[in-house]
Amino acid sequence: MFLSELIPLSKSLAITQKNQKIMETEIIDLEDSYLRVLAKEIYSLHDSPPFDKSAMDGYAVRAEDTFGASSNVVKNLTIIDQIGAGDFSTKELREGEAIKIATGAPIPKGANAVLMEEYTTANGNDLKIHSQVTPSENVAFQGEDLKKGDKVVQSSDLIRPQEMGLIASAGYRKVEVYKKPRVKLIITGNELVEPSPKLEKAQTINSNKYTISAMIKSAGAEVEISQRRDNFDEVKEAILNGANDYDLVITTGGTAISKGDVVVDVVDHIGKVLIHGIAIRPGKPLGFGMVNDTPVFMLSGYPVAAMAQFDALVRQYLFKMQNMDYAPKIEKRIATLKIFSNLGRTDYVRTYSDDKNAKYILNRGSGIIRSMVQANSYIIIDENQEGVAKGDLVDVLFFDNMNWSK
Amino acid sequence: MFLSELIPLSKSLAITQKNQKIMETEIIDLEDSYLRVLAKEIYSLHDSPPFDKSAMDGYAVRAEDTFGASSNVVKNLTIIDQIGAGDFSTKELREGEAIKIATGAPIPKGANAVLMEEYTTANGNDLKIHSQVTPSENVAFQGEDLKKGDKVVQSSDLIRPQEMGLIASAGYRKVEVYKKPRVKLIITGNELVEPSPKLEKAQTINSNKYTISAMIKSAGAEVEISQRRDNFDEVKEAILNGANDYDLVITTGGTAISKGDVVVDVVDHIGKVLIHGIAIRPGKPLGFGMVNDTPVFMLSGYPVAAMAQFDALVRQYLFKMQNMDYAPKIEKRIATLKIFSNLGRTDYVRTYSDDKNAKYILNRGSGIIRSMVQANSYIIIDENQEGVAKGDLVDVLFFDNMNWSK
Repeated sequence: MFLSELIPLSKSLAITQKNQKIMETEIIDLEDSYLRVLAKEIYSLHDSPPFDKSAMDGYAVRAEDTFGASSNVVKNLTIIDQIGAGDFSTKELREGEAIKIATGAPIPKGANAVLMEEYTTANGNDLKIHSQVTPSENVAFQGEDLKKGDKVVQSSDLIRPQEMGLIASAGYRKVEVYKKPRVKLIITGNELVEPSPKLEKAQTINSNKYTISAMIKSAGAEVEISQRRDNFDEVKEAILNGANDYDLVITTGGTAISKGDVVVDVVDHIGKVLIHGIAIRPGKPLGFGMVNDTPVFMLSGYPVAAMAQFDALVRQYLFKMQNMDYAPKIEKRIATLKIFSNLGRTDYVRTYSDDKNAKYILNRGSGIIRSMVQANSYIIIDENQEGVAKGDLVDVLFFDNMNWSK
Repeated sequence: MFLSELIPLSKSLAITQKNQKIMETEIIDLEDSYLRVLAKEIYSLHDSPPFDKSAMDGYAVRAEDTFGASSNVVKNLTIIDQIGAGDFSTKELREGEAIKIATGAPIPKGANAVLMEEYTTANGNDLKIHSQVTPSENVAFQGEDLKKGDKVVQSSDLIRPQEMGLIASAGYRKVEVYKKPRVKLIITGNELVEPSPKLEKAQTINSNKYTISAMIKSAGAEVEISQRRDNFDEVKEAILNGANDYDLVITTGGTAISKGDVVVDVVDHIGKVLIHGIAIRPGKPLGFGMVNDTPVFMLSGYPVAAMAQFDALVRQYLFKMQNMDYAPKIEKRIATLKIFSNLGRTDYVRTYSDDKNAKYILNRGSGIIRSMVQANSYIIIDENQEGVAKGDLVDVLFFDNMNWSK
């Protein structure tokens, strides 16, 4: 049942992708849709602007009537009405006439331009103008942003502020989006306790609870945490409940490669283990399986190993659950040290990169969280590469670029 | 009172920075601290790991006793105890002895290495070993991640998943962070209505409510929205309440440059207008002032102008309120068209940039939200630059890089 050799990352990803779940969709209020993923394309219900409107505070005029006016040549018009924002005029403008108009108000019939207020002097109904305008000047035309029936957004678009504005302009107060994945995070380990100034002998602080739950959020998902002892029945109950009530289960701890450890044992017993042991470093002891059609990622108990496993496999799985491709930008930097790596294994080397160089951070082991705090990026040495020499251009993935909302 | 000429962006920023407010701090649960800003440096309360522990499931041994063992040369040890995770052994290991040990358990006295289980065969208390280990092998040493008293994080650090893990390891369940700014967003405009398939004459859909509130969230702040008619008393009451109950007030609409428009009038009446009219494009009609010691940003009613104003001034103000410097990465791209710009004015040109080029997006006006949806970046032409020629290297700011949590 347990795979006896480490599976390369590329093959592991093929396995998780083959078992990819996509969330159902839901209809939510547009104002709650920031950073959600659209499930349906949207077509505009009307023109935007919905009418020709003034782009300035001033006077709606016939441009022809202003020709020749300047600071030296003052022309005269007669004010016949005024239109505030939200109002409109029923009058039709004729030669020699002007209608006072606010920004955003509909251009009255007969007018074809707006003269800015600062180029005018009004005295009762008499308007002196000191400038000319060309036809269409200071008019925002009906439909210039959107025409009725225009496709506004695509399915799978991430909703940024501007998409929200355009969807609103198209006439919608609700949008159909992919549900956010609800993740059950199960932390295992008898030795784990909450942070405290004083620890009893053999106790270790549960840091994975904090790092992995925040990483789940950073991938656009919601998380609930539970903690279990390294006990088959306790872990079994937690994973079964998680698989039944959540969209995804993530565990930490109990994934040793050398033998069937408790978490992998449980998944093997109640579901199917599809990956056990992956050729990445750090992060070798990873499991992946399905329980009642719910994916279960079994991460290492080692903090840094668990983080690398999350970044190598889980992050893109969570993105894709929301129908979003995970394609973080990979940048090129100069390696400042020789780095060893085995062919067939993908290395995630913690590094601090600036604009030019990727500075190696002493990679002392998969328990050293401090190395992830000092780092801002990974050098990724892929499975077809056998280490890098000092001075080589290497692939660098900045942590910032991996987040859902970056 | 109203400034008669447009203020350059650099000078405007000097004014807002001079009136920069910084939030007070609060103590929150570590598990709620993701993406908050630390207000105090943190020192570790103990060593992490808190004891020398096993990094593998296997047997704690004296490395010397294993020397020479191999798949051909089997050596024998006697198992005298076993230690599960969270347990410890009171026994001291002597020559020829081994203690079964779980990952994470404390190394017993007398042992100096752990031999992985897969290189052993156990039969009752007899252990056959098929491999040798060097001293320290598979041991995670006390304090190798953190030593008691080590500085764990700096004040002003953004709390990422790894900081949460390290702070937990240092012994803390609570952290002191800057409060999130609470922003009152006041939308003005008689013509504005909620999105709807059918609009009455002269009505315009309120898209700023959606874009600007989402932008406020994208800068790490919280927002509450209210809408007011273009009426001095209504706007006055809203701004006064906002200034008293919130950390920052943002308005949209009513900021025309040519005359005192309602919002700017109100702020001039109840507080102090410090900026009215800024040399950016789009976004000229911007106001900034103080009311009862609360900053008020008065944005344009034009959707795209308001967004550019937010990106030029408000975003960094909100970051700094949380004691975070806003320093988004500026990248260089090749301009694919000649772009006009006036000396003294900063242009935010909506563009779609790929790895190489910044493709000009028809910049049809400050009402065209669609242009922001098609764009992924701004070309920024600063106030000392007089336009760019086709083929020039230009400064590009990707929208993704402007967010709080990127």
